[in-house]
Amino acid sequence: MTYCLGIKLNAGLVLASDTRTNAGVDYVSTYEKMNAFGIEGERQFILLNAGNLATTQAVVNRIRRDLDDPDAPVSLHKVRYPFEAADYVGALSFEMQRRHRDAVKETGINVEANFLLAGQIRGQEHCLFQIYPQGNYIASSRETPFLQIGESKYGKPILDRVVQPEMSLEDAGRSALVSLDSTMRSNISVSIPFDLILYRKDSLRIDRRIRYEEDTPYYLSLKKEWNEGLRRAFRALPRFDWE
Amino acid sequence: MTYCLGIKLNAGLVLASDTRTNAGVDYVSTYEKMNAFGIEGERQFILLNAGNLATTQAVVNRIRRDLDDPDAPVSLHKVRYPFEAADYVGALSFEMQRRHRDAVKETGINVEANFLLAGQIRGQEHCLFQIYPQGNYIASSRETPFLQIGESKYGKPILDRVVQPEMSLEDAGRSALVSLDSTMRSNISVSIPFDLILYRKDSLRIDRRIRYEEDTPYYLSLKKEWNEGLRRAFRALPRFDWE
Repeated sequence: MTYCLGIKLNAGLVLASDTRTNAGVDYVSTYEKMNAFGIEGERQFILLNAGNLATTQAVVNRIRRDLDDPDAPVSLHKVRYPFEAADYVGALSFEMQRRHRDAVKETGINVEANFLLAGQIRGQEHCLFQIYPQGNYIASSRETPFLQIGESKYGKPILDRVVQPEMSLEDAGRSALVSLDSTMRSNISVSIPFDLILYRKDSLRIDRRIRYEEDTPYYLSLKKEWNEGLRRAFRALPRFDWE
Repeated sequence: MTYCLGIKLNAGLVLASDTRTNAGVDYVSTYEKMNAFGIEGERQFILLNAGNLATTQAVVNRIRRDLDDPDAPVSLHKVRYPFEAADYVGALSFEMQRRHRDAVKETGINVEANFLLAGQIRGQEHCLFQIYPQGNYIASSRETPFLQIGESKYGKPILDRVVQPEMSLEDAGRSALVSLDSTMRSNISVSIPFDLILYRKDSLRIDRRIRYEEDTPYYLSLKKEWNEGLRRAFRALPRFDWE
């Protein structure tokens, strides 16, 4: 499994992902699930993926080939609107899955993939999309500022409580790390290293890209403080009337 | 959906459940999912259910009929060991599901049900079981003191952090309410009223049984304090090194 999260703020975009993949419990490995494609000062796109690793790698390969090919009819550097980028990734994903349709029918293997696509084209608003295995997609909104793919339930309650479009990039980054950490504690299919990107609106470059390992000092201190803060909050809860 | 939770402590048992059921989004209703069957001073059993409502009601009806019938070969008042009670409920559940096997095949409706069974027979240890739709079951353990059925993921992180067999019944009761409240905030298929039972080991009676409505003062203050405590913990998290 996997857990990826995108948050669209007034101030910009926050993207976070874990790196664990597994094909059964006896084949667990580490893969980056976050890819950035951009031209500084012109446009930035960040793609996060969950689901079948062969499908998601094939999609990323095709995106890269189209970027290299000046004759490609569409690419992330050619689209004029962000929604066209979501269209393009959705179509690639669906095509890659369909290729293995017969093999899938015979073996029951799931080749579906889900994506988050975030970014900005110069002169336009920054944006965040969730792309479904069928190739269609939805955008975030003011009322739904974050979107998740993969193992999303464990880490949702804290986001529901704190995430708001008015947050700073840094606060949203902290909420994303806490959400990933909570998920990892409760489910072994999600695991560190974590990748985090903070994108400041209109900067048109990746402002911060950080990898957190098990022993990264900031992650260690965040994890410890969060655990202690939760325990303090728990101990401070009101007593039952008979206590 | 539903969310039910059982915790086995050295001090006794804590059981909690929501009351929401739904058959599609246009048929949402409230049903108690917690049933107690016992003889004060002799034995107590508490059954929590998730899954198909027709199946779980049929199981509870059969349990009650067997309790009324002096000639029933097995009943919750006749079993000699707690595991025999789990065997019995598992067999009833599987039988009720199998009855509708053909209809299920034709319509694709899921008639599966999951149960938590907790209790104590005089002179024996108190116990907690999770009973699968297939009729087999597992018990809690020292390392796994809580078991969940239904919409279990949202409310698991807080339990993973605080639940230990050495907790008081009251602390475990608070953790259960917090876990239910977090789940309800993130998923509309789980909702208040909540039912809570605290069973003190060897008391052989239901020591506390409380229903929490939206406006129950204790629930209101617990919810408020927990929300504020979490926000305080979030605000106290360490800053990134560039802040």
